[in-house]
Amino acid sequence: MKDEQVEELKRIFGSAPFISDLGIEAVSAGEGECAARLVLQPRHLQQDGFVHAGVQATLADHTAGGAAATLSPPGHIVLTAEFKIHLLRPARGRVLECVAKVLKPGRMLTVVESEVWCHSDSGRVLVSKAMATLATVAKERTP
Amino acid sequence: MKDEQVEELKRIFGSAPFISDLGIEAVSAGEGECAARLVLQPRHLQQDGFVHAGVQATLADHTAGGAAATLSPPGHIVLTAEFKIHLLRPARGRVLECVAKVLKPGRMLTVVESEVWCHSDSGRVLVSKAMATLATVAKERTP
Amino acid sequence: MKDEQVEELKRIFGSAPFISDLGIEAVSAGEGECAARLVLQPRHLQQDGFVHAGVQATLADHTAGGAAATLSPPGHIVLTAEFKIHLLRPARGRVLECVAKVLKPGRMLTVVESEVWCHSDSGRVLVSKAMATLATVAKERTP
Amino acid sequence: MKDEQVEELKRIFGSAPFISDLGIEAVSAGEGECAARLVLQPRHLQQDGFVHAGVQATLADHTAGGAAATLSPPGHIVLTAEFKIHLLRPARGRVLECVAKVLKPGRMLTVVESEVWCHSDSGRVLVSKAMATLATVAKERTP
Repeated sequence: MKDEQVEELKRIFGSAPFISDLGIEAVSAGEGECAARLVLQPRHLQQDGFVHAGVQATLADHTAGGAAATLSPPGHIVLTAEFKIHLLRPARGRVLECVAKVLKPGRMLTVVESEVWCHSDSGRVLVSKAMATLATVAKERTP
Repeated sequence: MKDEQVEELKRIFGSAPFISDLGIEAVSAGEGECAARLVLQPRHLQQDGFVHAGVQATLADHTAGGAAATLSPPGHIVLTAEFKIHLLRPARGRVLECVAKVLKPGRMLTVVESEVWCHSDSGRVLVSKAMATLATVAKERTP
Repeated sequence: MKDEQVEELKRIFGSAPFISDLGIEAVSAGEGECAARLVLQPRHLQQDGFVHAGVQATLADHTAGGAAATLSPPGHIVLTAEFKIHLLRPARGRVLECVAKVLKPGRMLTVVESEVWCHSDSGRVLVSKAMATLATVAKERTP
Repeated sequence: MKDEQVEELKRIFGSAPFISDLGIEAVSAGEGECAARLVLQPRHLQQDGFVHAGVQATLADHTAGGAAATLSPPGHIVLTAEFKIHLLRPARGRVLECVAKVLKPGRMLTVVESEVWCHSDSGRVLVSKAMATLATVAKERTP
């Protein structure tokens, strides 16, 4: 990755208060790819003991942003326009891991797929999958 | 609402650790409708000062669950199968408010629309809109 | 509507072979709105006698394009980036009618909601609802 | 595949008037998978010469139904509850091919991914991708 991309990725993960607050950390990044993880705590759960859909959606969306950012030109940022997430299986375990890959890069719009895996003592299982549309916007045009 | 519905709604909002932790509160509920709110804090934000998409998604999903629960039969709970959220405008303000309405109730599947409004000194603005599919499941069949 | 918008709307409905072939017709248009209809024929159906989801999706997508086009600047066209459609009820009747409204206009991206109604002897019923993201692109940049 | 699955697959492709009318044909099927194709004709196009999004959506949805049907128990049919499709690239060529795979099978809900490829003289390219939720319903409960 170029310096600007690393900078954009750091910006995306390091200094977003909501992401720090939840405990989401970037794990790795490459051209069009990004991985992140979250060590699960009781406060991430639903009343039934499973990870809340909102936690999974936050992880999927943010990691998608990280993947898109690896391809964005200098002086630009990426903003999520929309995403859809399928909650496939109940998530109970120690760690959530998200792997996001760009399906289609674009000058204006980038489409990213994010898979969320839950690690427990019995292995890892795919708990949710998202597809997101991200817009690439020049920094001076951001609101 | 019947007693079982009130109980299910309380279950959905009162005792979900992630919802309490964020500060989301139920405001009102009726047949096929639910409203909730969140007083914004710095930890809910992106680095750019706007409310994180994950916060909006959590609020939209959870309130959709509240709306669907008002129609679910006794002994059943609702689980989100999937949702899509459009981030329409940057969200900056004091309070997020979500209004969720059932578009199509069903024995097995319920479709809900959630609108998220951001209140600031200059009024309120629609910042995101979600459509969700929720499954109604007998309690004994939940994982 | 300005002349360019009328022209773009005609372009969207009048000369698209797939739309003519199916029999979809524009009914009306205003600022950020468009309506279209389809007189149902046996070839539009599933084997079970209900209107195929693909017919409903085509109508919802195309009418969304019509609604977005009423707001697009001269020299630009609108292209669907993605849409999601909920099939709410089985569609059996004489005529499908679609009403599309812009939820959020934008210089680059426009979000549109399309409702598809089915008219039969017993009245009209909402059979599907879609939300679409459309990109506004300068004509010279189209592929 | 069991006899009931073959029968359900034939039902899904062979006798749906809209699918026959468009020219969509099943190519192959296995446990949780289905492939179909469409030889492109001028009537499948937009005015700009590219394949209409509605044609791609129909192919993606119907092939997803085929994939889900390979896993549905005897006496049951699959119905699409919702799908989202991303139009990734303009589609111009001779043949569309769709490959659908079940991402998560379920007693009640099945999630399927459909990829649509366009074959032209210069090779094949991924033009759209859909994710669909299908409900498995006992035949006697269908509307």
